[in-house]
Amino acid sequence: MRSVEDLSPSDRHGLEAALEEARAGLAEGGVPIGAVLLSAEGEVLGRGHNRRVQDQDPSVHAETDAFRAAGRQPHYRGTTMVTTLSPCWYCSGLVRQFGISRLVVGESKNFTGGHDWVAEHGVEVIVVDDERCVELMSGFIAEHPSLWHEDIGQELP
Amino acid sequence: MRSVEDLSPSDRHGLEAALEEARAGLAEGGVPIGAVLLSAEGEVLGRGHNRRVQDQDPSVHAETDAFRAAGRQPHYRGTTMVTTLSPCWYCSGLVRQFGISRLVVGESKNFTGGHDWVAEHGVEVIVVDDERCVELMSGFIAEHPSLWHEDIGQELP
Repeated sequence: MRSVEDLSPSDRHGLEAALEEARAGLAEGGVPIGAVLLSAEGEVLGRGHNRRVQDQDPSVHAETDAFRAAGRQPHYRGTTMVTTLSPCWYCSGLVRQFGISRLVVGESKNFTGGHDWVAEHGVEVIVVDDERCVELMSGFIAEHPSLWHEDIGQELP
Repeated sequence: MRSVEDLSPSDRHGLEAALEEARAGLAEGGVPIGAVLLSAEGEVLGRGHNRRVQDQDPSVHAETDAFRAAGRQPHYRGTTMVTTLSPCWYCSGLVRQFGISRLVVGESKNFTGGHDWVAEHGVEVIVVDDERCVELMSGFIAEHPSLWHEDIGQELP
C-alpha cells in the first residue's frame, strides 16, 4: 500500500487523470470510476470512465473504456492501467489477457477485485490508499446501492 | 467434452446462433468469433461477434458484444453465455464477475482461455467439440496470424 506521494510522476499523473474521469462520470449521473492506460513512456494512450448509466451499456467499465479509447495496439508490453478502484474480474481479466505490464489501483477499500490475481500472473501491481478515491466511491455506494450492485453483477443483500 | 447432438435444445439453438454471428464477422473481414447470452428460459437476451476490425475497437470480443446487446440486467442468475471459442481471460472474467451461471464453449482446440477457471468458481461449463467452430477458427488463424495474435494480446512468435 502506498500513498499518492510515493508514486512516480507518471503514475501520479495517471491517477489524477483517472480521478478526473471518475468525477466526470459522477457529474453525468454515472458510476464514478475512472481509468487511464499509460504507454511504457508514461504517456496517456487512452482514458475513460464507467458508462453503464450514460450509455445504458453494462460492458463499459472504466478500464474497458480506457482500453477502447487507446485503440488497436500491436501489444501492451510496458503499459500501465491506472484505475481509481480495484478492478473487477472482468477488468482484471482484461489486464491479464492483453499483457498489460503494470496496474495502479487508487483504492481497494470499497471493493477488492482481482488485483492480487493479476499480480500472481506477473503484473506489477501498486495499490494506493487515495482518500479522494475512497470517499468518491463510498459516497456513491451509500447513495446508490442498487446501481453499484448492478455494476458488479451482485444482487442487493 | 460433448458433441453438438448432446446439447439441450436451447444450448444447441444458442450455439447455432453464435456460429451465425462468427460467420457474419468473417464476412465483414473480422475475427470470426460469435456469442449469445441466453436467459434462464433459453431465450436470446443478446448476440454479437468480435468487432476489433469492423469498429477498430479492441474491447469488443464476441462475449462482450453479446453482453452489451443484452443491455442492463438486474442480475445474470440462470443465464448462459454461449461462445464459439473458449473465452479469453477478459471474457472469462466477464462471466465470473457478473455471475453468469452457465458457459457453453463451441471449441477449445484453437485456443483455451479461462473456462476451467470459471468452472472452479461455480459456473457450469460445457465444452463442445464442434468441428464447424474448429475449422472456422483454424482457417482464420492460418490466414491472419498477426490479427489473431493481436486479438489475444500476444506478439507473433
